[in-house]
Amino acid sequence: MSNSLYDAERRILVCNDDGIFAPGIRALAEVAAEFGQVDIIAPDRQQSAVGHAITVSDPLRVTSFQINSRMEGQAVNGTPADCVKLGHDKLMQKKPDLVLSGINHGSNAGINIIYSGTVSAATEATILGYPAIAVSCMEFSESADLSGAQEAARRAVRYVLQNGLPAGVTLNVNAPGGPLKGLRWAKQANSRYVEEFEGRVDPHNKPYFWITGRLEILDKGEDLDLNLLKKGFGTITPIQYDLTAHSFYGKQGSELE
Amino acid sequence: MSNSLYDAERRILVCNDDGIFAPGIRALAEVAAEFGQVDIIAPDRQQSAVGHAITVSDPLRVTSFQINSRMEGQAVNGTPADCVKLGHDKLMQKKPDLVLSGINHGSNAGINIIYSGTVSAATEATILGYPAIAVSCMEFSESADLSGAQEAARRAVRYVLQNGLPAGVTLNVNAPGGPLKGLRWAKQANSRYVEEFEGRVDPHNKPYFWITGRLEILDKGEDLDLNLLKKGFGTITPIQYDLTAHSFYGKQGSELE
Repeated sequence: MSNSLYDAERRILVCNDDGIFAPGIRALAEVAAEFGQVDIIAPDRQQSAVGHAITVSDPLRVTSFQINSRMEGQAVNGTPADCVKLGHDKLMQKKPDLVLSGINHGSNAGINIIYSGTVSAATEATILGYPAIAVSCMEFSESADLSGAQEAARRAVRYVLQNGLPAGVTLNVNAPGGPLKGLRWAKQANSRYVEEFEGRVDPHNKPYFWITGRLEILDKGEDLDLNLLKKGFGTITPIQYDLTAHSFYGKQGSELE
Repeated sequence: MSNSLYDAERRILVCNDDGIFAPGIRALAEVAAEFGQVDIIAPDRQQSAVGHAITVSDPLRVTSFQINSRMEGQAVNGTPADCVKLGHDKLMQKKPDLVLSGINHGSNAGINIIYSGTVSAATEATILGYPAIAVSCMEFSESADLSGAQEAARRAVRYVLQNGLPAGVTLNVNAPGGPLKGLRWAKQANSRYVEEFEGRVDPHNKPYFWITGRLEILDKGEDLDLNLLKKGFGTITPIQYDLTAHSFYGKQGSELE
């Protein structure tokens, strides 16, 4: 692959939350391979919407897998954040220079960022001190055209390799399915799910609920991730794990009686 | 209970992540009952470190429980965020005026905020538009003296009832075990776990890993939650779910080529 940024000494850890068999992680690993050596460490099964869960009460097990003829990977019976923590501490012989998470099947923009296992893997890497990028594609289908998301990932990787990232900042990339129309810097859109749990009754006459719902965007700003995605653009949103509401904090005294 | 802020019309939803049988949720429900009518909706089992997970691939079931002679509750086979979502949409006959989560057995300060199911329940309530407070006690023991954490919760509730909370802001309260020495407004301390996964071999000769580790505080500020807790104070940290790294965002152009 002709790429002036390729460096055979560079180690890139690739993770996701859809599990090691999802097409998205192979698509992201292909992009990673344009820039360096790839280590794939990912959950052994679908882990969507796990947020930043970590596994404290169960032991973690690791299985090696052949992803395809050119790539190997390690599957962990844990969450995306577990994979990054365990990869960092035990599984990687050399520490990564960059961590990529995705390509998620389904976007992680607006309020979805806080539910996302894909994003949490990248955030965990940032906490551990590695530059990290999460990548998601709006299409849920396993046969979706991920070429635009791959191109968005490629641009984000190029940006990080050329500019670095400040401590505490993670890049969160989203793209529609199909070719990339453009990649815009964006802010997280204020949004929420309007839930409509569907109540059903099982064959044994016991009630249960399925979560359903639609995403409601609460702000019209043209610089917001969800609004840009609706217009067909890819988005790149810098996020942080410092959750302090600094402006509100600044208005308080020191003691609450 | 003599309390000028008590209002029989006020509904307070109490949730947690340690599960409906944990002493902490009863201690918090007692505080809530000083201010209004209490609905308890909580996970049916321990859900620590689940972060902001939600359950999308399994149905949710609900069981009614008698907590003690004065209180009933509903147990959900899901995460803390599930409990708040389902309570809001289906289980509460009247919407809550306030949502409390905790008292967690173990602190949720510094980087622990992002792993915390207790905090995620409160954050979820904020997303849905309710004022919300998460409360945690540093002591893990089930027999810990929660009176200081209860007093911290009481002060935080009083603050919210008297002042309200801006949209998008959640209060995260922590306290040592025992009586409250003081409750300080605080910022989330930059911190991370130095992980040391412990590798073992099972009786069938297969390897596995347990997560262990110690929390490392990366900043010495006297206004940081972890540092104030070490000095014996309770802390109240305003947090937000807007994760945009605004300062970094402001330095970028609109398009990334």
